[in-house]
Amino acid sequence: MIKIIKVGGNIIDNPTKLKSFLKDFALLDGQKILIHGGGKLATDLCVTLGIESKMVDGKRITDSETLKVVTMVYAGLINKDIVAKLQAFGCNAIGLSGADMNIIPAKKRVDTKIDWGFVGDITPNTLKAEKFEFFLQTQITPIFSAITHDGEGNLLNTNADTIASVIASTLANAGHKVSLVYTFEKKGVLVDVNDNSTIIKKITFGSFNELKEKKIVHSGMIPKLENAFKSIAEGVQEVKICMAEDLHDFENAGTTISLH
Amino acid sequence: MIKIIKVGGNIIDNPTKLKSFLKDFALLDGQKILIHGGGKLATDLCVTLGIESKMVDGKRITDSETLKVVTMVYAGLINKDIVAKLQAFGCNAIGLSGADMNIIPAKKRVDTKIDWGFVGDITPNTLKAEKFEFFLQTQITPIFSAITHDGEGNLLNTNADTIASVIASTLANAGHKVSLVYTFEKKGVLVDVNDNSTIIKKITFGSFNELKEKKIVHSGMIPKLENAFKSIAEGVQEVKICMAEDLHDFENAGTTISLH
Repeated sequence: MIKIIKVGGNIIDNPTKLKSFLKDFALLDGQKILIHGGGKLATDLCVTLGIESKMVDGKRITDSETLKVVTMVYAGLINKDIVAKLQAFGCNAIGLSGADMNIIPAKKRVDTKIDWGFVGDITPNTLKAEKFEFFLQTQITPIFSAITHDGEGNLLNTNADTIASVIASTLANAGHKVSLVYTFEKKGVLVDVNDNSTIIKKITFGSFNELKEKKIVHSGMIPKLENAFKSIAEGVQEVKICMAEDLHDFENAGTTISLH
Repeated sequence: MIKIIKVGGNIIDNPTKLKSFLKDFALLDGQKILIHGGGKLATDLCVTLGIESKMVDGKRITDSETLKVVTMVYAGLINKDIVAKLQAFGCNAIGLSGADMNIIPAKKRVDTKIDWGFVGDITPNTLKAEKFEFFLQTQITPIFSAITHDGEGNLLNTNADTIASVIASTLANAGHKVSLVYTFEKKGVLVDVNDNSTIIKKITFGSFNELKEKKIVHSGMIPKLENAFKSIAEGVQEVKICMAEDLHDFENAGTTISLH
């Protein structure tokens, strides 16, 4: 089972939590891949440099100056810091963007209403599983920043959750058993967002529609779950949503997403 | 013959020159590796962020804030921009720091007189040639930023010329034929630094000592040539110092360094 783990901004922004998370990640058995977001570091650097952060529906518009910042912060500062720390924990990590080895080719988003700038969209059929094989076979652990490219010389900013799900689907399609784990700041999907004891241990495709109708799940959780179901439909064995601090026991922790 | 090319700041700082250089690099036949410096971008960003650049004998003292900047600029912005551009030119590049795959382990510099901060020193016997074999055999082209690590979780700033020479020696020691090419802003080593027609086509170990005594070569060129002779002594077939714009014809261009 290949473990594909997404870690979000709340951990990246906290050096102590990040170190602890990376220690747990290094200890996970077998083949694994980490995808990281950027946290507040990129926004903070934009503020310092006087670059206005333009958001639409919580999504960042990436003009050329913002692209430079996210490339520096995601693919440089955060990615290499994670790699160096994992090496110290005995995990033979390699930091990658989608441009490296052309491993995640993307398409610049075309939207007739909004110019998203340098934002890249990806789909499973644009990725080639064989590009991952060398790393999987030699137990080298790829660490992906959320930067891709268009094959025409432009880097692109791509949603880290989407990268995780597309890598998972690609490897599942190629015959691998894949477990996809989204870590975040809560114990899992919660009925009461402020009460970790209200965790929903399992969500099926049927119960998801119910949860949406009753507005128990909303906003940021909906695309996360939609991605999860897409991955399951595309052959991923299991999708987990759990607290980053529970990574060492992710099999038993969090919310499990399955078709039935 | 593996071509190991170092490109310096004057090209990195100029988007038009960089694009042209990368096009030439992409067209070079066979196995190749690129090592890039940082140019003025890191210094400029330090100024913007109010981080004082402390230099001793033209070498940068890398405190923790400066390390963050060079990691962002070298391993993020410049490295990934080069990789994306090379992919567009049909060269299957992968951007690496020394922490990735632990491919360039370094030691934090210990100097009783000056605290250099996060500066890493490397020697040929700390590198393992087999870590390069996958890339060489599959014609994936490694692009190295001048960032290494100490194996204890810390990234380190390392001289790009030294990285180039140490990689060259390591691969030569492993039985590869290696050509090491330092590109810079002049046609080669010049008698009159302002006159490209005064190029010295060949420097032997004997003539180097003469050139030093007569102060025809001085300052930044001396460590460059010393590194070149070290590489030759360590089994590198040939070392070239030439203008970046002559890369397409580097075999005939520039200054050739050899033992005799």
